[in-house]
Amino acid sequence: MQTEPRALNTVPFVSVENMMNLVRAVGVDRFLIELSEVIAEDFGRWSLFDKTPRVAAHSPDGVIELMPTSDGIAYGFKYVNGHPKNTKDGLQTVTAFGVLSDVATGYPVLMTEMTILTALRTAATSALVAKHLMPSGSRVMALIGNGAQSEFQALAFKAICGIDEVRLYDIDPTATQRCAQNLAGRGLKVTACGSAQEAVLGAHIVTTVTADKTNATILTDNMIGEGVHINAVGGDCPGKTELHSDILHRSSIFVEYPPQTRIEGEIQQLSADHPVTEFWQVITGAAPGRSSDKEITLFDSVGFATEDFSALRYVQRLLKDHPHSEDLDLLADPDEPRDLFGMLLRAGVA
Amino acid sequence: MQTEPRALNTVPFVSVENMMNLVRAVGVDRFLIELSEVIAEDFGRWSLFDKTPRVAAHSPDGVIELMPTSDGIAYGFKYVNGHPKNTKDGLQTVTAFGVLSDVATGYPVLMTEMTILTALRTAATSALVAKHLMPSGSRVMALIGNGAQSEFQALAFKAICGIDEVRLYDIDPTATQRCAQNLAGRGLKVTACGSAQEAVLGAHIVTTVTADKTNATILTDNMIGEGVHINAVGGDCPGKTELHSDILHRSSIFVEYPPQTRIEGEIQQLSADHPVTEFWQVITGAAPGRSSDKEITLFDSVGFATEDFSALRYVQRLLKDHPHSEDLDLLADPDEPRDLFGMLLRAGVA
Repeated sequence: MQTEPRALNTVPFVSVENMMNLVRAVGVDRFLIELSEVIAEDFGRWSLFDKTPRVAAHSPDGVIELMPTSDGIAYGFKYVNGHPKNTKDGLQTVTAFGVLSDVATGYPVLMTEMTILTALRTAATSALVAKHLMPSGSRVMALIGNGAQSEFQALAFKAICGIDEVRLYDIDPTATQRCAQNLAGRGLKVTACGSAQEAVLGAHIVTTVTADKTNATILTDNMIGEGVHINAVGGDCPGKTELHSDILHRSSIFVEYPPQTRIEGEIQQLSADHPVTEFWQVITGAAPGRSSDKEITLFDSVGFATEDFSALRYVQRLLKDHPHSEDLDLLADPDEPRDLFGMLLRAGVA
Repeated sequence: MQTEPRALNTVPFVSVENMMNLVRAVGVDRFLIELSEVIAEDFGRWSLFDKTPRVAAHSPDGVIELMPTSDGIAYGFKYVNGHPKNTKDGLQTVTAFGVLSDVATGYPVLMTEMTILTALRTAATSALVAKHLMPSGSRVMALIGNGAQSEFQALAFKAICGIDEVRLYDIDPTATQRCAQNLAGRGLKVTACGSAQEAVLGAHIVTTVTADKTNATILTDNMIGEGVHINAVGGDCPGKTELHSDILHRSSIFVEYPPQTRIEGEIQQLSADHPVTEFWQVITGAAPGRSSDKEITLFDSVGFATEDFSALRYVQRLLKDHPHSEDLDLLADPDEPRDLFGMLLRAGVA
């Protein structure tokens, strides 16, 4: 029996280490800005996408989700978990990885860690949406919930929306302290606040990004004055909301994909026919964004598969100039495609 | 700024190379037998599984599917494509990889190639089902369609069902020739046949495993005598069938998961309420298998997520004695779980 060398059909893999190398190579600000541009581009060609609500496996402690989408040329999916109790055991609440594939062949063309990438794409999406909806002259953002996503939100709103002050609040003061430390020296005035009420004082934008898996009330109606833009990030699965429903009734609500948001977002508190605007309509000009200085705009963000698709596309593009990837031996590649067993035979499997 | 070494939270990864090492380490026959035992075990605890029909993205050239399932303790999913035209370009029709995760934390605990593994699990499932349904004393199997899956079917039926002769037919004689060569010296009498009709002569079991993405008629009614067990593997997506419906009407039909099989299997040709038996019922004794020597039994196989789950569990078990895996740096693991940005900072991202 002859042993022939096997021509490897490898898939570029971006490890956690290499994702950090990529972010380092281009810089966080530029990464967020360019990523938001790709996200905007994909929202702008919304109708091309095959849109499926995510496939979720719920358990008492959390959820594991698969989020696929395709534009007909490329196919992407993300694996992501959400387990709030994980932090008690020194683990991440959210970890993720993703794959981009070629629709014509079905072959994966990129695999990447997406824990860091999801944090960046969530922040880039929030800031992109805010850029279209926030009151003009927005400078100050309240940031309620100072966990793993908080610094990314602060930096995205600085880079993309021109925010120069963040007002932090978390029920855990050590979280606020760490967030403030991480943001020090990055061109933002950072104010640690003793309550959510204090944090929203003077804020043009209010971002909520807490992790409790409950119907919480992070913001009550009296805390939100006219003209504010609310970026509600943390309420993102059934039974997990952050805003009092009175705020929702006063707001113009913008969402990613209604079939998913009505199940997972803040608007799970509202009737199924409550009017919402899809953000792609704002991007393409099919619907107006903010219509007055007094309007309260609300982005009910749950994260949608197209944003991950955009992030995968952006990473694929970055790799051309910054080859921070490894070759993953993921795809069996026999010399003759129908001779899979022959490949085993030639490898000495008898 | 201080750069601290990052404690890696790695995921064991079984590459194509290492999957071949695993199969070599235990041997193909033992691998197929043990895998079929794990598959049987999981069919035996069917009610525990969270069952979701696969999530498919269809395109003109093929399909990309995600197949998740969970038993409440572990969660598994497989990525798999099916692109019959790929072979023309030297690519595989089917490639796959899979992930096993811990439901309690959502963390992946195993990633593996599944192109080879799927070929093994499909064959192990076919043979497991046949062991319960074939006429007693079965010795001869017709094998129609001699592509990438064919040798695995032959070897699984030898190892698990005691078959000692296979009768091969493919519309492409070179496929038959290669299959016969690959099976030479493996304890099977191999007969190359000039037609499907010739191949089924004297066969106790008829396996169809062709790849055309059409409603083909590989078997016509007159070719199937009484008492035969049919293992219909190739008809596995909408618009892709292999058997004439007359055969279906004469057969007792066994399936994996009716909601999926009625869409993807041979029974897409029948009315939605045509009676079928779920194979787990045969395994647990809740329903009879074959009831007479004259009965035609038909396994309308489409492949179900639990079988991949079983395969992932088996590979995880094998790795304990045969550590053929690499460590994949897939999961960001900051020292303090909520300090994802701090991890970037300490890695020098500024």
